[in-house]
Amino acid sequence: MTLLSDVAPDTADLLAVDDELTDTDRDIRDTVRSFAHTELAPYITEWFDAGGMPRELVKRMGELGLLGMHLEGYGCAGTTATAYGVACRELEAIDSGLRSFVSTQGSLAMYAIHRWGSDEQKQRWLPLMAAGDAVGCFGLTEPDAGSDPSAMRTAARRDGTDWVLDGSKMWITNGPLADVAVIWAQTDAGQGARGIRGFVVPTDTPGFRAQEVRGKLSLRASATAELVFDSLRLPADAMLPGAVGLGGPLSCLSEARYGIVWGVVGAARSCFGTALSYAHHRTQFGRSIAGFQLTQQKLAGMAVALTQASLLAGRLGRLKDAGALRPAQISVGKLANVRTALDIARTARTILGGSGITQDYPVFRHMVNLETVLTYEGTEEMHALAIGKELTGMSAFR
Amino acid sequence: MTLLSDVAPDTADLLAVDDELTDTDRDIRDTVRSFAHTELAPYITEWFDAGGMPRELVKRMGELGLLGMHLEGYGCAGTTATAYGVACRELEAIDSGLRSFVSTQGSLAMYAIHRWGSDEQKQRWLPLMAAGDAVGCFGLTEPDAGSDPSAMRTAARRDGTDWVLDGSKMWITNGPLADVAVIWAQTDAGQGARGIRGFVVPTDTPGFRAQEVRGKLSLRASATAELVFDSLRLPADAMLPGAVGLGGPLSCLSEARYGIVWGVVGAARSCFGTALSYAHHRTQFGRSIAGFQLTQQKLAGMAVALTQASLLAGRLGRLKDAGALRPAQISVGKLANVRTALDIARTARTILGGSGITQDYPVFRHMVNLETVLTYEGTEEMHALAIGKELTGMSAFR
Amino acid sequence: MTLLSDVAPDTADLLAVDDELTDTDRDIRDTVRSFAHTELAPYITEWFDAGGMPRELVKRMGELGLLGMHLEGYGCAGTTATAYGVACRELEAIDSGLRSFVSTQGSLAMYAIHRWGSDEQKQRWLPLMAAGDAVGCFGLTEPDAGSDPSAMRTAARRDGTDWVLDGSKMWITNGPLADVAVIWAQTDAGQGARGIRGFVVPTDTPGFRAQEVRGKLSLRASATAELVFDSLRLPADAMLPGAVGLGGPLSCLSEARYGIVWGVVGAARSCFGTALSYAHHRTQFGRSIAGFQLTQQKLAGMAVALTQASLLAGRLGRLKDAGALRPAQISVGKLANVRTALDIARTARTILGGSGITQDYPVFRHMVNLETVLTYEGTEEMHALAIGKELTGMSAFR
Amino acid sequence: MTLLSDVAPDTADLLAVDDELTDTDRDIRDTVRSFAHTELAPYITEWFDAGGMPRELVKRMGELGLLGMHLEGYGCAGTTATAYGVACRELEAIDSGLRSFVSTQGSLAMYAIHRWGSDEQKQRWLPLMAAGDAVGCFGLTEPDAGSDPSAMRTAARRDGTDWVLDGSKMWITNGPLADVAVIWAQTDAGQGARGIRGFVVPTDTPGFRAQEVRGKLSLRASATAELVFDSLRLPADAMLPGAVGLGGPLSCLSEARYGIVWGVVGAARSCFGTALSYAHHRTQFGRSIAGFQLTQQKLAGMAVALTQASLLAGRLGRLKDAGALRPAQISVGKLANVRTALDIARTARTILGGSGITQDYPVFRHMVNLETVLTYEGTEEMHALAIGKELTGMSAFR
Repeated sequence: MTLLSDVAPDTADLLAVDDELTDTDRDIRDTVRSFAHTELAPYITEWFDAGGMPRELVKRMGELGLLGMHLEGYGCAGTTATAYGVACRELEAIDSGLRSFVSTQGSLAMYAIHRWGSDEQKQRWLPLMAAGDAVGCFGLTEPDAGSDPSAMRTAARRDGTDWVLDGSKMWITNGPLADVAVIWAQTDAGQGARGIRGFVVPTDTPGFRAQEVRGKLSLRASATAELVFDSLRLPADAMLPGAVGLGGPLSCLSEARYGIVWGVVGAARSCFGTALSYAHHRTQFGRSIAGFQLTQQKLAGMAVALTQASLLAGRLGRLKDAGALRPAQISVGKLANVRTALDIARTARTILGGSGITQDYPVFRHMVNLETVLTYEGTEEMHALAIGKELTGMSAFR
Repeated sequence: MTLLSDVAPDTADLLAVDDELTDTDRDIRDTVRSFAHTELAPYITEWFDAGGMPRELVKRMGELGLLGMHLEGYGCAGTTATAYGVACRELEAIDSGLRSFVSTQGSLAMYAIHRWGSDEQKQRWLPLMAAGDAVGCFGLTEPDAGSDPSAMRTAARRDGTDWVLDGSKMWITNGPLADVAVIWAQTDAGQGARGIRGFVVPTDTPGFRAQEVRGKLSLRASATAELVFDSLRLPADAMLPGAVGLGGPLSCLSEARYGIVWGVVGAARSCFGTALSYAHHRTQFGRSIAGFQLTQQKLAGMAVALTQASLLAGRLGRLKDAGALRPAQISVGKLANVRTALDIARTARTILGGSGITQDYPVFRHMVNLETVLTYEGTEEMHALAIGKELTGMSAFR
Repeated sequence: MTLLSDVAPDTADLLAVDDELTDTDRDIRDTVRSFAHTELAPYITEWFDAGGMPRELVKRMGELGLLGMHLEGYGCAGTTATAYGVACRELEAIDSGLRSFVSTQGSLAMYAIHRWGSDEQKQRWLPLMAAGDAVGCFGLTEPDAGSDPSAMRTAARRDGTDWVLDGSKMWITNGPLADVAVIWAQTDAGQGARGIRGFVVPTDTPGFRAQEVRGKLSLRASATAELVFDSLRLPADAMLPGAVGLGGPLSCLSEARYGIVWGVVGAARSCFGTALSYAHHRTQFGRSIAGFQLTQQKLAGMAVALTQASLLAGRLGRLKDAGALRPAQISVGKLANVRTALDIARTARTILGGSGITQDYPVFRHMVNLETVLTYEGTEEMHALAIGKELTGMSAFR
Repeated sequence: MTLLSDVAPDTADLLAVDDELTDTDRDIRDTVRSFAHTELAPYITEWFDAGGMPRELVKRMGELGLLGMHLEGYGCAGTTATAYGVACRELEAIDSGLRSFVSTQGSLAMYAIHRWGSDEQKQRWLPLMAAGDAVGCFGLTEPDAGSDPSAMRTAARRDGTDWVLDGSKMWITNGPLADVAVIWAQTDAGQGARGIRGFVVPTDTPGFRAQEVRGKLSLRASATAELVFDSLRLPADAMLPGAVGLGGPLSCLSEARYGIVWGVVGAARSCFGTALSYAHHRTQFGRSIAGFQLTQQKLAGMAVALTQASLLAGRLGRLKDAGALRPAQISVGKLANVRTALDIARTARTILGGSGITQDYPVFRHMVNLETVLTYEGTEEMHALAIGKELTGMSAFR
């Protein structure tokens, strides 16, 4: 059976939203799309089944400039935020796990160091990470602190000038393969550091352990770990000097969410394109099911929703490139676009009928992946309440 | 009880979509918004209850350049399509019936004459209509030909050089007050005119009768009529020379639909703004209901949907201004934005509780109005199938 | 145009749910249905337009035993709860306002007196009310105390043995025509009465004023008032002796909600039947729209939802007749069935196209009525949280 | 991590729907439930991961009387249809694949033989199948004939008195482990057999090949095969004498669908119970998430939907036990209950947050399983059109 994946990106762009990209950004799109189709699409089901992608792929992504793509200097490509979004979209058109890798590397780990790190930290890590020679992860969420990261229990206590970390982090993308982890911990009072602080931790530091999460039925191409810190001793200069309090990690989440807003448009497009192509070729009752009213209604609904998602991503891109993007605006995008993508995936699945439950088509895989994407970086409820707070001035989180 | 209507257009524009308007278009927005708040909002419930708006208002709209606003020459304002859309939005923020008047005048009647009329027809009617000295209506739909206008039965037969029309048209906005009607009819074979043709008909022509539709529970500020033609005799030059076949009236519908795509964003914004304001002031269980999770979820959902609708309208505006707008793209906008507006109105209604069922707030009125807007100019089903046809190349209408 | 109202109750009962009624209850159904079709259906649009129904109708309902129908003794019919539910359904198949009248009379005012009143109160009022010679209303909700009735401000203070009431009540069904009102008020400490108590108030008592709510766009066949109490003096025996605290009025609300659960099935059935009949007769693209996939999908969805609502009402009836019905179970019914009915009405409206916005068909009227029904006797949010509390043991109301 | 599966079936039965079961049927429920919790629940994730359940389980199900349970004689248990439904529910509370096994064995393969078979066929196969000593499968669907089985290409041609079958069948549950297959094929004209006929085929017959479907991401505990017939020669008495035309296999589908209507209630209950329990124990922002409005709204919505599904299954059971169940009524149940179960599973998944994507909880597994259940035995579209046909008398399938 032929793998019909994402054959019709232009058909899917009914309002020609991509025409509003700059030429440069469109060139980047074409490069990433070509890479995705040539080097990712043929292997993705294998990686999904195996529960991870090969390490060489990281290096290849580095060569293409996909890692920390929108950051300036230190070997990063320094593209527009829009171009970075478009790249996320093209990667997630293949699999959310691939985009998750890039998000974690570039928007979480690299961004944290780029924005909040010391010059020494930047120079040590960013060129390696941009080149794909070092993989990063980002440790914020804990088993009992998901939507509410301020409840984290991982503690960093001072011991002389050293820091000693104890605790654990959960659902850490890239955790099993990371060379370096940005870990957030509660620090004790005194010595000039109180509250939540970030630490740059080489994963071969004694006391650091990453335990892969097994039994995932979603985002299987991306490796996830629980990180455990057992008297993990770090030198004073492991701390990110710029980040004090929850604002530090939240700024990174905003970056990652921005990438998600774009990325899921790719997953949705792949599902839509697959369903459209399948409907064309599938015959029932003597004719193509693409000609039935009920199928056309589904296709039309998907096309409309995809258009809305594209427009939303595009607007956030322009706001970010203008330096005007606020967190509540990203919440609008995360809330709307992931839900849209998931709905499109589910509808596309039904068009495929029985064929929709196997790996012969990418739709079921996208659909189960998007369950994770719906959850991480803020559930629908958290983003609704973030927007609610922006609108009303009242916090309803607790 | 204070009328809380549409107090927060900026709050409602979470992604600052209006920042992407040109300065000129934003100036037009401000002018129309000011007019709407000063001269329309205070009276609209009265007009709704009375079942129509005063004739003087037409003249006033003419003075402001709102009639045939985006047409060139003949006394028309000649603005961008985007500015016209924005004007529709600001008018419909008060009431869909007001926007319907303007749509019918400018996008249907005037557009038909402007695009398909003879010089003489244009010079006779357009300046009067632009100035608000003549009201136009557009007769396409018939009692048994709604979604399928090709089934129309109104017939124009040749009698010498004259045309004689017999038949009827239903759901004709502006019908009861029109001075001139653009009427579409099936013509018989021969004499160079076969198929559907349009006629410019002064409503005082003998044989023309407009009978107001009574018992409407929706769009009451806009007058609707059944038009009956009983051996209505017209001179040869009453025919629109440029329009042959169904393409003529359909081109006008596309214009009107474009205005709807923008207009309903206004109705939705009014509902959202009213609900947000009401939620702030309404106290239950000892605190503002704006602070409850369930209310915030509704408000956030509305804000997201409103943003999506604004982005969609904006994109269609840019396409239309670039001369690149295709009917299937308008279908995307009509389908998505009217549904969005209706959903927002319904949700806003629930936030208002018992207060939501009276005329003290504009929400219920918007909600019932939008039922008409959902139906006219193509139901959801018709637009879904139009998009479906675009996507699949197969027609599923019948 | 023919009024096609509710022609197909059997078609609408796909799972023959009514076959599970007892013969007696089915006989009652047939009697009420016949009454409704003969004496209500022909006049309902007139009453809706006029904003109320004629007083003679109350007497007629009394003759038929519809008032306080499921209560025992005092001239009440003493039917099963299921029969009462069925009667509510048949009345609301005509209009929610008619059922609201009966609910207010029987489930709120009469029930309050029947359950919590003194023998003297029962003997004075119930026979008159059962016969339709006295109309009752029920004053609980206040302008600032809707979902949270415990916040009521109406106060009853002792003055000798008399009670003096001051305050106001809002959204009081039957208020403009009531002869007697059951009013709930906060009582002051001491003299054996503290907390919320009920009072039986003849509406000609000095200091009692009922001000009709104007501008309603929903439930117009039912009259609604604001009640104002200005030093309203009542004798000691006006107090309902049995009801102490919020439990008193809440027990009445449970009764009324039970009737709603059944009633809205009637409104939904009328909408479904109308849409089905309309679809049969309406031709577009050369054939009956009932043969189009998109229409059939809507019809099927409505039929399924109607079946679910019927089953839910039936189950609640059996539980109530067994004396086992709990408030959270009624919340399930109120939440589910009103939402279902409203969704069915909205879908039916779309099938009617343009015809759906006038009074020529009952659908738009049902649809706007159901907005009130959605709100009164507990909004969706309140019932969701009531069920949530039942499930989790945690109150999330505030 | 503790596996919290389906701990609260009573909490989930808010309207005490199970109280309407007979004592006998409730005893059967308790037996199956106990079996399911003891012998199925502990191993189901293992079977799901492995892609099938152990053969011994079939024997054990036979001992319990679960196979062909509602059939009379030939070693079958002969329970009510309601009891059979309840058993399906309790099995599917563990996994849809287990219920699928039982449905295929009892409602498809055994039912086909029981209803349409010769005495000899019944006596040969039914006792073995009831005891779990033979596994059956049912071959109707083909790669290009899913929703429209009349398009099947598998052909049976006469060769002397033998039949020779060629063709293939797709998505055949139990295919890889079946001992006997009921295969439907087009027969050629003449010799008293024209049109679609059924054949009882021992799977060790030369020319019969079952090829397991790989890469399924749904219903993995149930084995699925493509069956290929290559000059498969059968004696004359292999044909089911009673079934002529499509009515034969369709009668079996009705049986299987009936079991699905009940079964999915179990899957939904498991998801709901898991989410409720998880919400209780999960703390965020300093308190149990079960106390948040947004969580309670989800829980209430699930409880309401689950109640509706239970009532629907119960009503179909009573109709079937009364011999009055029609296919369109089963379509109501299949359409409504599978959709409900899937929606509940999806909502439950979100309550579990990140934990919802692993096998630590049964919800994700149920959710992906239900995608298959949504599709097989008639998609939503097919059942909507079946109901539409019942309502309108018009077929809109093609």
